[in-house]
Amino acid sequence: MKFNLLHTDKHSKARVGELHTDHGSIETPIFMPVGTAGTVKAVHQRELTNDIEAQIILGNTYHLYLRPGLNVLEQAGGLHKFNGWQKPILTDSGGYQVFSLVNSRKLTEAGVIFKSHIDGSSHLFTPENVMDTQRTIGADIIMAFDECTPYPCDYNYAKNSVALTHRWLNRCINRFNETEPKYGYEQALFPIVQGSVYKDLRIQSAEYIANKNCVGNAIGGLSVGEPAEDMYAMTKVVTAILPTDKPRYLMGVGTPVNILESIALGIDMFDCVMPTRNARHGLLFTSNGIINIKNEKWKNDFSMLDENGTTFVDKEYSKAYLRHLLVCNELLAAQVASIHNLGFYLWLVKQARVKILEGTFVEWKNKMVIMLAQRL
Amino acid sequence: MKFNLLHTDKHSKARVGELHTDHGSIETPIFMPVGTAGTVKAVHQRELTNDIEAQIILGNTYHLYLRPGLNVLEQAGGLHKFNGWQKPILTDSGGYQVFSLVNSRKLTEAGVIFKSHIDGSSHLFTPENVMDTQRTIGADIIMAFDECTPYPCDYNYAKNSVALTHRWLNRCINRFNETEPKYGYEQALFPIVQGSVYKDLRIQSAEYIANKNCVGNAIGGLSVGEPAEDMYAMTKVVTAILPTDKPRYLMGVGTPVNILESIALGIDMFDCVMPTRNARHGLLFTSNGIINIKNEKWKNDFSMLDENGTTFVDKEYSKAYLRHLLVCNELLAAQVASIHNLGFYLWLVKQARVKILEGTFVEWKNKMVIMLAQRL
Repeated sequence: MKFNLLHTDKHSKARVGELHTDHGSIETPIFMPVGTAGTVKAVHQRELTNDIEAQIILGNTYHLYLRPGLNVLEQAGGLHKFNGWQKPILTDSGGYQVFSLVNSRKLTEAGVIFKSHIDGSSHLFTPENVMDTQRTIGADIIMAFDECTPYPCDYNYAKNSVALTHRWLNRCINRFNETEPKYGYEQALFPIVQGSVYKDLRIQSAEYIANKNCVGNAIGGLSVGEPAEDMYAMTKVVTAILPTDKPRYLMGVGTPVNILESIALGIDMFDCVMPTRNARHGLLFTSNGIINIKNEKWKNDFSMLDENGTTFVDKEYSKAYLRHLLVCNELLAAQVASIHNLGFYLWLVKQARVKILEGTFVEWKNKMVIMLAQRL
Repeated sequence: MKFNLLHTDKHSKARVGELHTDHGSIETPIFMPVGTAGTVKAVHQRELTNDIEAQIILGNTYHLYLRPGLNVLEQAGGLHKFNGWQKPILTDSGGYQVFSLVNSRKLTEAGVIFKSHIDGSSHLFTPENVMDTQRTIGADIIMAFDECTPYPCDYNYAKNSVALTHRWLNRCINRFNETEPKYGYEQALFPIVQGSVYKDLRIQSAEYIANKNCVGNAIGGLSVGEPAEDMYAMTKVVTAILPTDKPRYLMGVGTPVNILESIALGIDMFDCVMPTRNARHGLLFTSNGIINIKNEKWKNDFSMLDENGTTFVDKEYSKAYLRHLLVCNELLAAQVASIHNLGFYLWLVKQARVKILEGTFVEWKNKMVIMLAQRL
């Protein structure tokens, strides 16, 4: 797996690159739709490819480990063969879900014992078995098993947690290096910078991670409830340290505004459930601002969903029709809105890429962040 | 609107025809997917057109009248413009829903007063206003307002009900003839034969309806819980009377077996929620029989959904993957299974048409009804 940094903006730290994997190349900056249980909710695989033009999707290790389970995934020949998605897949480590979804868990040096949110059964995640699990899922990009601290998090907890995440990282790297891909294509391990909102911890963690010389690096523990200013400040601290010739992935971020601001800080990769989750609640992101399609004002608005939109739903369905679908709890509402929002996110990062190459990114970004935050 | 009867089978009463409407031609026999609230659940309009190859869909007057309501539909320019479906639409009269969905209703000579199942508000449906409503929805084919008797139904009730349905039909025809299409394309009214499972009432009703000389005729009040033998017996009685040069529509039918048997009895048009509703519960209809995808046996079956299937889902998703989606309550499960089932229903009627033209329909049908009823 190889990352080519093609261009860095003169007026910001924004970058344009290409990440080459055995399942195809990814043009950065990129947004990665989240396919929790091996499906991006309400979206067909061919719609992801042809309409949304996704280049890489996420799978959640925690969910896939529980269902369909590793036996099924291994017999299928990995997640790509199981769900029919031909392009790259990144899996998270399950750490975030273990700390956010699960009520009952026990954290030790060895790992985390937790109870499934589905049936209450007990499971153990360790740095080692999480590497094995992601090998079996067959992700192109495997994430290190870390502790994702909540917000707020006191300094001492965050400090000890970073140290644990670093010790776990060494175990992840050892196990990763001792094992082979299962399905014939290359898999890469990305370590994760932690440190909550504490600058010194972020610096320490970024330096530790940078020294591991992995194919790419991630920033975790942000977008967990802290003010956006803290998120940007921490991102800025970390991107100043992480190597420039490796892709940087800001985990779980974010709104369209968050994404543009973070691109300006030198981030290359993003994922977030927001475009799909908000779609299911009728919130549409557009280049003119945010639409809450449930509002009465759209009831008689027969204009197309988004005149600037790039997907078929934007030109084939009206605002009034989508509102009707949503009000009636029709499944098609989630389908239409999810395709729209994901199409918009992919358009946004593609536009950012064009603007960076043109040298007009900062100017464009400063205009866009005002438009994007408007409520229509 | 014009129906051309192209061929009648020598060995059965099966027929091949073409129904020409201002929104395009329909090749009969045909199955019409049900789009209750202006959407065939979980299916995009372009999938209906390109993948399922639907030629006409249904809308439910009761549902559309309540939501989005006639104001919105009229401002949109009718349902075709509202939902983006370009081909013909048939609307039922709302009678069936008023009698099946609603707990509180009062039937009089004038019409039916009922309370909405959504908000409890009171509404009145009369033969006249139901014609107006379907004019406003903009259906190509408008159904008469009838009383759909339940099963079982005692003879005297059924007899009085048929008489009421006939009186209402006259009012429907009068109103229909006094009014004009609202959106510039032709609308046709189909009357409905009733009479429960009583041969003499069915004969009387079929003769009454036949004499009205409408563009097409429908058979209602079947597939409401009676044994299949009764349904076939009543259908046979009625198709012997209805004019051969008009299309016959058997309302709310049915399983793939029901459809083939009814084609053999001279039926041209069908609708049913079964392919979409059963899809959402994981029941797939295939040319080899019925699959309950939730069954453990499909957990590790990575073969494609249906090797004989005609839609993209049959070739792009495996049985194990669909099972996983359904077990996880993923929206994509309903999407995949609905496209499969509707694609199968459309394939089935298209195959029937080919076999009728070839003169091999009965032989083929007799083999198919055994296969289709198998549990895989």
